[in-house]
Amino acid sequence: MIIVHHPSEGERYIAALRQALPGQPVIAADKAPDGSDAYFVCWQPPAGFFARFAAPRAVFVLGAGVNHLLERDDLPDDVPLVRLTDAGMAAQMLEYARYGVLTWQRDFDRYRAQQAERRWQVLPAVARSEVRVGVLGLGEMGGHVAAHLAADGYRVSGFSRTARDIRGVRCLSGPGALQALLEGSDVVVNLLPATTDTRQLLNARTLAHLPQGAALVHAGRGSQLDEDALLAALESGQLRFALLDVFADEPLPAGHPLWTHPGVTITPHVAAQTLPADAAAQIAGKLLQLEQGEPVAGLVERARGY
Amino acid sequence: MIIVHHPSEGERYIAALRQALPGQPVIAADKAPDGSDAYFVCWQPPAGFFARFAAPRAVFVLGAGVNHLLERDDLPDDVPLVRLTDAGMAAQMLEYARYGVLTWQRDFDRYRAQQAERRWQVLPAVARSEVRVGVLGLGEMGGHVAAHLAADGYRVSGFSRTARDIRGVRCLSGPGALQALLEGSDVVVNLLPATTDTRQLLNARTLAHLPQGAALVHAGRGSQLDEDALLAALESGQLRFALLDVFADEPLPAGHPLWTHPGVTITPHVAAQTLPADAAAQIAGKLLQLEQGEPVAGLVERARGY
Repeated sequence: MIIVHHPSEGERYIAALRQALPGQPVIAADKAPDGSDAYFVCWQPPAGFFARFAAPRAVFVLGAGVNHLLERDDLPDDVPLVRLTDAGMAAQMLEYARYGVLTWQRDFDRYRAQQAERRWQVLPAVARSEVRVGVLGLGEMGGHVAAHLAADGYRVSGFSRTARDIRGVRCLSGPGALQALLEGSDVVVNLLPATTDTRQLLNARTLAHLPQGAALVHAGRGSQLDEDALLAALESGQLRFALLDVFADEPLPAGHPLWTHPGVTITPHVAAQTLPADAAAQIAGKLLQLEQGEPVAGLVERARGY
Repeated sequence: MIIVHHPSEGERYIAALRQALPGQPVIAADKAPDGSDAYFVCWQPPAGFFARFAAPRAVFVLGAGVNHLLERDDLPDDVPLVRLTDAGMAAQMLEYARYGVLTWQRDFDRYRAQQAERRWQVLPAVARSEVRVGVLGLGEMGGHVAAHLAADGYRVSGFSRTARDIRGVRCLSGPGALQALLEGSDVVVNLLPATTDTRQLLNARTLAHLPQGAALVHAGRGSQLDEDALLAALESGQLRFALLDVFADEPLPAGHPLWTHPGVTITPHVAAQTLPADAAAQIAGKLLQLEQGEPVAGLVERARGY
């Protein structure tokens, strides 16, 4: 049996999984009886979600991050957690980053502000080769984004914990690398994984390294950004705008000041969504590998955190 | 002598031309004495602009279109009009089109509307391969845009007066082609040249061919679009949004309803701006060719209209 939990797309995943796994019963978590012995396919299961079921055979994780499934008290440590390998997510992240970079380069934010005042005023054109893009995180997501933005013709630098080598990208790592990257970036694209090292990495001190009038595209994890420091940087003009996909609290509370700040664009954690048909096909393959005791790509190492 | 007219970027062009042509005096049109015998570098010179000068030796045209320099009574028919060949304009047009296509595909317009209501709601992901883009006009601009959007992974069709062949693009021409293209396009990118054939081409009848909830990226010429029909299509939901760079009257009059319609994004004729350094380098080369009686690329054929 396969039990599916997804706050908004549950029906699409159930349909896709039934098609990919014709022999398996697939049901929504809220219709599954207590004590069910099953595989799980989940996106952001709430605290205590697994308590009423028997030990899961495995949990397939929808979405890029697994940190919400580590160190929880309703899931034994020996349950295999399986990430999907991409499923179109790096391509989506590139689209999201491109939209943010284009907004800065082509002044769509400024033209929107001018439109509100019915003002027709041409701003000087900026060529791609003049735009400095800094990508934080050069893993499966960030590496793809950095390489493609460089191929587009932007001046791309990247920051990662361990040294990388990506064609056309100035790759920085080690002490002082983050400061150097921020100081030379008109647009910062944050795609770092959620680890203890990256917690609150973007704060008042680090944001102050950015050149005046930079932009932030934030699609890593909410815990990496000090939202009060972000609002202050927008107020001072240090940041021209922020495109935000992840937040300290999700869903973003209705009273949060980020909702209404004119320099902020909010998307509800959708920068890279798993696509149901891709995901179901991958899960079918991985489930077979698990049952036959074969190695499974995407198996999470809990000690490493991903 | 070189006389420069540009409504907003005059100083940048003068500086770039002085650098590219160290031996030539370069001055702004409003500081040039009456009767000056000179070359002209112009963007959208107003009616009667040339009347107070001696016959120009040649006019170098900034921007993609030359129609504003044809059939005017202040400019003799034998004055050579010289277009610049691209100067980075096709690359900019691709950026503009990409922004419009990404807005539709990734629902940035819908998320913006949700943000205004502080609503956190995930919309189903749409893959590039599911987005049907229709490009009107497959010349220097449209051909570049169509080919690159196809390489990005979108499903691209193109419409042109004469048949074309572009890798990865379904090219349509001839009777019925426009209707077929519009019927199968989620996002229409208009990059047609201004000719008598394309006048009011996008009107109530043709816009009605679009699927419900399509988008229009309009960066050809203002005369090609019936703006009342556009507003009606936005009101009915036939069009989800319009990204508009060109207008029947430019600058767009302050009282025009397009300024305030929530489905409209307005930019002030900047989708493809000539970049001063590129333009000055080209002008320097073409001026030398003219003076030495050599063939000049970009010389306008008045009968053809471009």
